[in-house]
Amino acid sequence: MSSPSAAAVKAWLLDLQNRIIESLEAVDGKPFLRDEWQRPEGGGGVSRLIEEGNVFERGGCNFSHVMGASLPPSAAAARPELAGRAWEAMGVSLVLHPRNPYAPTVHMNVRFFTATAQGQEPVWWFGGGMDLTPYYGDAGDARHFHQACRDALEPFGASLHPRFKKWCDDYFYLKHRAEPRGVGGVFFDDFNELGFVQSLALTQSVGNAFLTAYLPILMARKDEPYGERERDFQAYRRGRYVEFNLVWDRGTLFGLQSGGRTEAILMSMPPIVKWRYAWQPEAGSPEAKLYSDFLVHRDWLAA
Amino acid sequence: MSSPSAAAVKAWLLDLQNRIIESLEAVDGKPFLRDEWQRPEGGGGVSRLIEEGNVFERGGCNFSHVMGASLPPSAAAARPELAGRAWEAMGVSLVLHPRNPYAPTVHMNVRFFTATAQGQEPVWWFGGGMDLTPYYGDAGDARHFHQACRDALEPFGASLHPRFKKWCDDYFYLKHRAEPRGVGGVFFDDFNELGFVQSLALTQSVGNAFLTAYLPILMARKDEPYGERERDFQAYRRGRYVEFNLVWDRGTLFGLQSGGRTEAILMSMPPIVKWRYAWQPEAGSPEAKLYSDFLVHRDWLAA
Repeated sequence: MSSPSAAAVKAWLLDLQNRIIESLEAVDGKPFLRDEWQRPEGGGGVSRLIEEGNVFERGGCNFSHVMGASLPPSAAAARPELAGRAWEAMGVSLVLHPRNPYAPTVHMNVRFFTATAQGQEPVWWFGGGMDLTPYYGDAGDARHFHQACRDALEPFGASLHPRFKKWCDDYFYLKHRAEPRGVGGVFFDDFNELGFVQSLALTQSVGNAFLTAYLPILMARKDEPYGERERDFQAYRRGRYVEFNLVWDRGTLFGLQSGGRTEAILMSMPPIVKWRYAWQPEAGSPEAKLYSDFLVHRDWLAA
Repeated sequence: MSSPSAAAVKAWLLDLQNRIIESLEAVDGKPFLRDEWQRPEGGGGVSRLIEEGNVFERGGCNFSHVMGASLPPSAAAARPELAGRAWEAMGVSLVLHPRNPYAPTVHMNVRFFTATAQGQEPVWWFGGGMDLTPYYGDAGDARHFHQACRDALEPFGASLHPRFKKWCDDYFYLKHRAEPRGVGGVFFDDFNELGFVQSLALTQSVGNAFLTAYLPILMARKDEPYGERERDFQAYRRGRYVEFNLVWDRGTLFGLQSGGRTEAILMSMPPIVKWRYAWQPEAGSPEAKLYSDFLVHRDWLAA
């Protein structure tokens, strides 16, 4: 049974999904599909997806509300004492893969968890964040994205942005390649330290900042001319996105372990991906610049 | 330090790799690359790879010999009491992705593990197997592959093939899609029950059977005419191969966790992969037949 506060979170999440989809549809010109689904064990979701759009080659913004009798370990990595408790989770998850290789892939997620056990106070927490994955990096784009993230967190305390920025760098990291996923953003989890009202407000601020953070970058890049070379590099780099999500991402593993809807979870998979052996960009090329200047941990907002 | 028996296993593994590569090069006409590598912590390997060949779009047959101070959990799933022991592993791993969608992808692996602890007898075991993943299934091909697997195991006891066949069905299964990876084959792990000499002989028999099992299928399919439709379905189905290897395969996770050589491990990734949302084959189509007739657990050798 959801508490009144869970109902408030849910109403906001559904509204956030609607607002985001409305904007994305206006940009693309093609409507997103809508798939509503129920889970046999309780809960369900609303998946909103696009494929072969004018701007988005594949992407989605999904709401889900799921619950279970025993919290899977992937959802309680930082709090092993909660594994096995009854749990309830709701969230909005977004991944967009634009067709234009000059337009970065983006991810955003906001989520609310509750874990309950007989005779004990429920434990609840928020999590979320967003991060940007360019194929051809642009320093101005990276600054704009990080600025929007900082602006969203600033009202809740000056220490939060540096902390969540570093958390993002640490989380979206391909350990098997010693390589960041992209230029980062913010990430937080297990967050309840401001109390329910302010922790929710912070999460809302992050979710609401998504369009501000991403749309100007997308609008500036979506019509840049490109050729086979750029498409090929994009397909190769998308392989890293697959590797991260399937090998390291707790959200993906949690979804697949907890009987989530596979097709909605794997909406994050890019439409076309290439792998090739031990490939290296030519020295001095724009592709080499991605590695040297963007796939490095960096304070994008340093003066 | 390797024992004399480990040295014997190693010599056989290197010879197996050479014999397989020689045959595959004769089929393709293009030589496989050779990359020899050393591991800072000890050990190393020889990777043999092909990309954009005449027959193989991407593939490899890698030998590796690695060791460490503490066995990762992914390598000791069935024997948690061994996690944390000093260990040594050697093996040959093969994945071939032919370009022709009528030619199935194939995987073969043979491996030897030793786990040691101060003041205790070393624990050793063999593992391995092979499995076939068609895009357009053929019942005769599936029967031929399973027959070769059975023939390899028959001399070691009649109960082994049914056991290892079922183990393969259980292991190469995408739980998040409730779907087998392909038409199966054989799989075994933690195997030492016949004693060292016979357990090695069994593993050798499986490894040596690979060319017998796969080459006739490849030769029969590699020149079949195909078009965009078949290539597209192949790219879509290859997504399942990626999902299995990155989400469920213990060998891949072990390699990535134990500081293996990422590019050699991810040789199993197909060259071009596509994802699309909730796609279903048209009823009655050859693509639908893959799901209904081949991606099901089935006794291919039943009279």
